[in-house]
Amino acid sequence: MRIVVLAGGIGGARFLRGLRQAAPDADITVIGNTGDDIHLFGLKVCPDLDTVMYTLGGGINEEQGWGRADETFHLKEELAAYGVGPEWFGLGDRDFATHIVRTQMITAGFPLSAVTEALCDRWKPGVRLLPMTDDRVETHVAVELGGERKVVHFQEYWVRLRASVPAEAVVPVGAEQAKPAPGVLEALAEADVILFPPSNPVVSVGTILAVPGIREAIADAGVPVVGLSPIVGDAPVRGMADKVLAAVGVESTATAVAEHYGSGLLDGWLVDTVDTDSVTRVKAAGILCRAVPLMMTDLDATAQMAREALTLAEEVRQA
Amino acid sequence: MRIVVLAGGIGGARFLRGLRQAAPDADITVIGNTGDDIHLFGLKVCPDLDTVMYTLGGGINEEQGWGRADETFHLKEELAAYGVGPEWFGLGDRDFATHIVRTQMITAGFPLSAVTEALCDRWKPGVRLLPMTDDRVETHVAVELGGERKVVHFQEYWVRLRASVPAEAVVPVGAEQAKPAPGVLEALAEADVILFPPSNPVVSVGTILAVPGIREAIADAGVPVVGLSPIVGDAPVRGMADKVLAAVGVESTATAVAEHYGSGLLDGWLVDTVDTDSVTRVKAAGILCRAVPLMMTDLDATAQMAREALTLAEEVRQA
Repeated sequence: MRIVVLAGGIGGARFLRGLRQAAPDADITVIGNTGDDIHLFGLKVCPDLDTVMYTLGGGINEEQGWGRADETFHLKEELAAYGVGPEWFGLGDRDFATHIVRTQMITAGFPLSAVTEALCDRWKPGVRLLPMTDDRVETHVAVELGGERKVVHFQEYWVRLRASVPAEAVVPVGAEQAKPAPGVLEALAEADVILFPPSNPVVSVGTILAVPGIREAIADAGVPVVGLSPIVGDAPVRGMADKVLAAVGVESTATAVAEHYGSGLLDGWLVDTVDTDSVTRVKAAGILCRAVPLMMTDLDATAQMAREALTLAEEVRQA
Repeated sequence: MRIVVLAGGIGGARFLRGLRQAAPDADITVIGNTGDDIHLFGLKVCPDLDTVMYTLGGGINEEQGWGRADETFHLKEELAAYGVGPEWFGLGDRDFATHIVRTQMITAGFPLSAVTEALCDRWKPGVRLLPMTDDRVETHVAVELGGERKVVHFQEYWVRLRASVPAEAVVPVGAEQAKPAPGVLEALAEADVILFPPSNPVVSVGTILAVPGIREAIADAGVPVVGLSPIVGDAPVRGMADKVLAAVGVESTATAVAEHYGSGLLDGWLVDTVDTDSVTRVKAAGILCRAVPLMMTDLDATAQMAREALTLAEEVRQA
């Protein structure tokens, strides 16, 4: 079975670990969000790709969900001593190596997809990890700060401001001109099932869908497209998805997110058991829906979620 | 009093610490060797400039004489896990910050001299540290390895091969086209005394002198030029100066090094008390000479060496 997953960072990475356990023989291709990539200290940092790679490769800091296990922050301390920032982005000494290797390869002329493959040679994530595009896309967020409208990089909004002010607009700058990375459209065309993990619908899955050709390839694939709600009981399971959902005019409910994707894209939707009453409304929007536990409390619970998604996909296929 | 010192790495840096104590009110300008600079992992590394900066700024690893105190090597471990080398060059996590800041500034268009000044803003070495040039100069060493003649970067010869094979030639590649960095010729023209610390006469002081204009500016300055022998009792005090002296046809003796600099450049020369019998021969070469203890065992001993050098300079002036 060939499964394609559109993934953001922590939520996507943890779901993938469950999927790998649920479908050990499946051929899994991950299309990773690169809209939150950022250039720091002259280095290209790809937080979402790295979170997937570290999580599946066994190098993740399990507690925080991003960054490396057994990490130190001496380099960052020294940069601060030189007065070189930003200080709000937590790059550890081990993590820096990934960005140095990546930057060196990109400077040498390799596209991000080739670099990602090379990095995965070490981590052996057990999935094929593709960036959504080799082109530069940067999600920017318009906010009101101190009475002034400002546009900040997504990481500045998310990490520095901790989404403490409302996002007035979220724009994946460069997405319109971006081309899907090599392998992305092919993987979608050959997929048996396409999954949207409980990743952020706006700045993760939404950014991937903003690359011209990807949304169309999903719709044209003619296979079940099943998603898992990142909203449980009207609040994000993790992260601050509600802050950016408001910017695109979508309520923070499992139903509203399904309607946002729409029946033109989505065939099946899993909501949490606390949102059982939304099943009828999602179905009314033309999307198969079922309520199952959606808290990724441990690997077994997550694998069960993945199994439920694959089961729903089978139902879609037979419907 | 304005003192200009031509410095390499460890020997030069330790001497400077003594000089600063011996002449606390002096205005000290250091012309640092950049011939051992190397590009590693896409970063510009300046080992000699950094050794001077860290030593005078209180950040040096005292025992090894280079690199940072309280250092960790997690980034390097990770690079090795990615299969990215070289592994033989020991960059620590704290040290990496210096190279990242430097590379970022150079990429932004700043010359090395401006970058060095910016880095010294943090370290406050108590001297004005100038690179010998803003242009790229790289010392290469010709060796016979496995029956073949090869040319390797100086750091590969020094650190990886540990000077275990004879150097057949030492070439400061790019030196002929290099221009002295801003401030270098001015400092020499305004100096009251010029000192050669017990740095390597070939790959440290020799490389600085290979930048067109510097040797002439020293000769034309019309002030005492006094050096301290890095050779004590026919062997280098530290390092492997004998290996590269052979490549330029110079014996590893205090006398031979003085003769190599020559009376056209050098006015005074300090040899160690174990080399008292060389005093007469050095004087015969037209260079004032005195035997004093030259082991930099601690700061006081080093300060005493600096005082002896300044005293000899005074004798030169009155001769």
